Amino acid sequence: MLRTTTCGALTMENLGENVILCGWVQKSRDLGGMTFIDIRDRYGITQLVFNMDDNRDLCEAARSLGREFVIKAAGLVVERSNKNLKMPTGEVEIKITSLDILNAAKLPPFLIEDETDGGDDLRMKYRYLDLRRNPVRNNMILRHKMAQTVRRYLDALDFIEVETPVLIKSTPEGARDFVVPSRMNAGEFYALPQSPQTFKQLLMVSGFDRYFQIVKCFRDEDLRADRQPEFTQIDCEMSFIEQEDILNTFEGLIRTLFKDVKDFDLPEVPRMQYADAMRLYGSDKPDTRFEMQFVELTDLVKGKDFPVFDNAELVIAINAKGCAGYTRKQVDELTDFIKRPQIGATGLIYLRHNEDGSLRSSVDKFYNEEELKKWSSVLNTQAGDLVLIMAGTTDKVRKQLSELRLEMGSRLGLRDKNKFSALWVLDFPLLEWDEETERYHAMHHPFTSPKPEDIALLDSKPGEVRANAYDMVVNGTEIGGGSIRIHDRALQALMFKHLGFSTEEAQKQFGFLMDAFEFGAPPHGGIAFGFDRLCSIFAGLDSIRDVIAFPKNNSGRDVMIDSPSTIDDKQLNELKIKTAL
Amino acid sequence: MLRTTTCGALTMENLGENVILCGWVQKSRDLGGMTFIDIRDRYGITQLVFNMDDNRDLCEAARSLGREFVIKAAGLVVERSNKNLKMPTGEVEIKITSLDILNAAKLPPFLIEDETDGGDDLRMKYRYLDLRRNPVRNNMILRHKMAQTVRRYLDALDFIEVETPVLIKSTPEGARDFVVPSRMNAGEFYALPQSPQTFKQLLMVSGFDRYFQIVKCFRDEDLRADRQPEFTQIDCEMSFIEQEDILNTFEGLIRTLFKDVKDFDLPEVPRMQYADAMRLYGSDKPDTRFEMQFVELTDLVKGKDFPVFDNAELVIAINAKGCAGYTRKQVDELTDFIKRPQIGATGLIYLRHNEDGSLRSSVDKFYNEEELKKWSSVLNTQAGDLVLIMAGTTDKVRKQLSELRLEMGSRLGLRDKNKFSALWVLDFPLLEWDEETERYHAMHHPFTSPKPEDIALLDSKPGEVRANAYDMVVNGTEIGGGSIRIHDRALQALMFKHLGFSTEEAQKQFGFLMDAFEFGAPPHGGIAFGFDRLCSIFAGLDSIRDVIAFPKNNSGRDVMIDSPSTIDDKQLNELKIKTAL
Repeated sequence: MLRTTTCGALTMENLGENVILCGWVQKSRDLGGMTFIDIRDRYGITQLVFNMDDNRDLCEAARSLGREFVIKAAGLVVERSNKNLKMPTGEVEIKITSLDILNAAKLPPFLIEDETDGGDDLRMKYRYLDLRRNPVRNNMILRHKMAQTVRRYLDALDFIEVETPVLIKSTPEGARDFVVPSRMNAGEFYALPQSPQTFKQLLMVSGFDRYFQIVKCFRDEDLRADRQPEFTQIDCEMSFIEQEDILNTFEGLIRTLFKDVKDFDLPEVPRMQYADAMRLYGSDKPDTRFEMQFVELTDLVKGKDFPVFDNAELVIAINAKGCAGYTRKQVDELTDFIKRPQIGATGLIYLRHNEDGSLRSSVDKFYNEEELKKWSSVLNTQAGDLVLIMAGTTDKVRKQLSELRLEMGSRLGLRDKNKFSALWVLDFPLLEWDEETERYHAMHHPFTSPKPEDIALLDSKPGEVRANAYDMVVNGTEIGGGSIRIHDRALQALMFKHLGFSTEEAQKQFGFLMDAFEFGAPPHGGIAFGFDRLCSIFAGLDSIRDVIAFPKNNSGRDVMIDSPSTIDDKQLNELKIKTAL
Repeated sequence: MLRTTTCGALTMENLGENVILCGWVQKSRDLGGMTFIDIRDRYGITQLVFNMDDNRDLCEAARSLGREFVIKAAGLVVERSNKNLKMPTGEVEIKITSLDILNAAKLPPFLIEDETDGGDDLRMKYRYLDLRRNPVRNNMILRHKMAQTVRRYLDALDFIEVETPVLIKSTPEGARDFVVPSRMNAGEFYALPQSPQTFKQLLMVSGFDRYFQIVKCFRDEDLRADRQPEFTQIDCEMSFIEQEDILNTFEGLIRTLFKDVKDFDLPEVPRMQYADAMRLYGSDKPDTRFEMQFVELTDLVKGKDFPVFDNAELVIAINAKGCAGYTRKQVDELTDFIKRPQIGATGLIYLRHNEDGSLRSSVDKFYNEEELKKWSSVLNTQAGDLVLIMAGTTDKVRKQLSELRLEMGSRLGLRDKNKFSALWVLDFPLLEWDEETERYHAMHHPFTSPKPEDIALLDSKPGEVRANAYDMVVNGTEIGGGSIRIHDRALQALMFKHLGFSTEEAQKQFGFLMDAFEFGAPPHGGIAFGFDRLCSIFAGLDSIRDVIAFPKNNSGRDVMIDSPSTIDDKQLNELKIKTAL
């Protein structure tokens, strides 16, 4: 045996034991005739002590060790005179009697400490060293615990984890596929799955009743901030259920995760209609850690010859509590914020409810005190509040005010990463209009069922058809979404028609699924959670990158292994493909 | 709620309850004025009963149901007059008061029964219907249980499951890679991993200490019987360990699997040197459910002017106990068996130890009774035994007799699928000579460490260098293998040199790993189990196909979804590749 214990295990209970430890040299201090070395492994840090008087050679060997050297050290567990009660092992040290260098180490390119001096690029190139740092490794351990908890919870509820194929078929619907040329079927390609959607539905047709999988999925999209070409889903499906069953089952999953992994009691998750979420927060994924809901002023403010309001489809406001004291500069910052190209608003109007009770707005010349009082009343302001008002076309102004609301939430410290607020958003629209292709797209995917009472609207008002679709939102991030699926061939065919598929196209791409619906498909539905995102929220991180062991950069490159890379002509020839640059 | 319970739950304890069941119509019988329907779901079968006298419409609706219709039925749990004690629900039936058809079903193309009339091709095309059959679905449930058990066992031992990337880099070593053209890095390709080998080693460099993953791997090889282009590994790695630690940890895993999943107490797993396995069984994966070890007769039989033996490098024999009564025809069958092209032997010699104690061989004219007695003695034959002898060059004759041994084991009923015998095979050769490329290849992979005492032989006798490598064999199938890895840059570079890599090639392909070894790599080693194979052995199946939900056929095609398939020119253009057929 190389070691008898780990570097996180020894306490006063082990005094007098002879032990062997293995690990990395974290740091070293010489103090008079003594040398102290902190040895580190995944489990903790233990102090080793060497004494010139006891054994000069050994102590000098210890002094020759560099940072990150891998060593094996044997000795006696003794009590420390200078205890460090912050560490589990801080009351003891090991009086070393033998020392072996298992591997030397070059000086790392950045500090292996909780706070490092390494920049992003360097840490990605030497990701294996970055993973040595406690915060990064702890993210991976958190992720492991979450996956274990998910599996335990679902297994206990009779869900079966079934592995679906990674080499599947390319479909034009949705995001861009990664493809894999087939050598045995030259000229043909597999595709990597964007989700196991059709397979899990087939498993329901097979009678699996309850399926789940924690599974890699792939999307060849341009990587905006915080997207990865490969990502992980918790993918689930149930048969013979209604929406209520799914909401209860997976609310239970999320609450169990919070309890078991974070020891946090997530309250019952409130539910909100999509339409209400848009009306009250301007977003289908509102951050409900704070209120600051939208208030509609449209009717109240029209007809006073203020053209911005008079010409607006919608005038909405939020009450930024306690911000009446904002300086001109601070208000200008907010105006600049909403004028940024990615938000694209033209202006911001405010109403101050001053500490002395007076009301002042940036449009005082159009509205008298009486009118401002009405605004104040519907916004329920108190002395010290600042009302921020925006106007425009409904969809745009809602999005814009939503951004401002989040900004105000951040400025007011209302978006604490250690606080968690979850929400179900229900009854999404089935279809959304795509300006670019000038046709309707499935808002979730083409297998989502419309609400039965809305099917009649499919021809006349397709944009108003609601779906049996739901998202779970935590802290303003969509962590999962799903739907009750179509299980009837005719309805599925109708959906494809409305999505612009010809009958032939639909049959070619999804014939296997529609055929399956004819052999006894049960009512079914499911949900998929973005596991990377869920882990990052649990870890209190903004980015998913640090909950992925070996992530890719924004160009889809793994800079550590230098991938993608060119391949041999021999490989290309075997695959019967050529590059065409 | 669509249902109140499942079709496998109701017993005498539920008498008098009103229940709602959902499921598939398994079968239907009309008996006078009664109709009985077996309704099936994943959990079981329950009998529904309808009575013409009670409700004519309902009973007629029931009679109109076809096989595999999906129904919802509500009624009262009553005691059956004609009980079926073989089924958990066989003492009750449900007197139905309401019936809904949730989905009709066309007649399935084959019987959804334990024994089906569907051929392989048809069942693959309608895999979702094949998965409805109990034996196939039970295989998937077994697989799920095994995965859960693996995770529970390893988690309890502080192993962390870390997801390694699927989009990695192509390497020329080993089997052929599947590649994925990169759109964002046109002209470059990712590769799908054949195993996460280098990543798990980097995780050891990162100090993860104990890693595992149940992970999809990919190999673009011609699919001989029972290979799949995508397969699943239980992939594991440990730091600061010796071979003994790995053998103990993973013997524990396999024994836990047998205990928890099959309720079978696997005895302590014996260990055998590779050289001994070859000598005693002619195979590095001997089936140890039965003995029938090889006995070397070379020295004993030479010098009697029998040219077959005199010219042979090796003469070996097995004792087929109780087969002395084999007819001439049966012996001829064995001769034909070993002469088949895939075995390629030229002849078989036998020695009968007849029931009357006499000895008769097929080479009586060269060997007298005295000599045959010596053979009988070393083979420890008893009256009724048949000795089968083969001669030739060492490697060939061992392989040939190994095949014959397995054939005899099968004929003698010694290879019961419900019996399990495991074995560790240790100390594999590091390198093996490849006739085709005329160079040495790594027998396991290039990261396997040589035994320290054999390193000196690398230059002089590379074929004799033993590796710190081990396989676990169950019932004659290799279910897993691994090694203690190289963790020293210089030794790794030496290995690449011996494998024919130039320094530049080695650096280009594996520089990231060799660089990592310079920053403090711990001693480490690991193992990977073929999860599909392990599941098939547990399920008592010959093929891995039926433990995979959606397998591909021998041409790498998924005939259900019709993949691989051609893709749009638009996709090809975006990827900047062309097909070159």
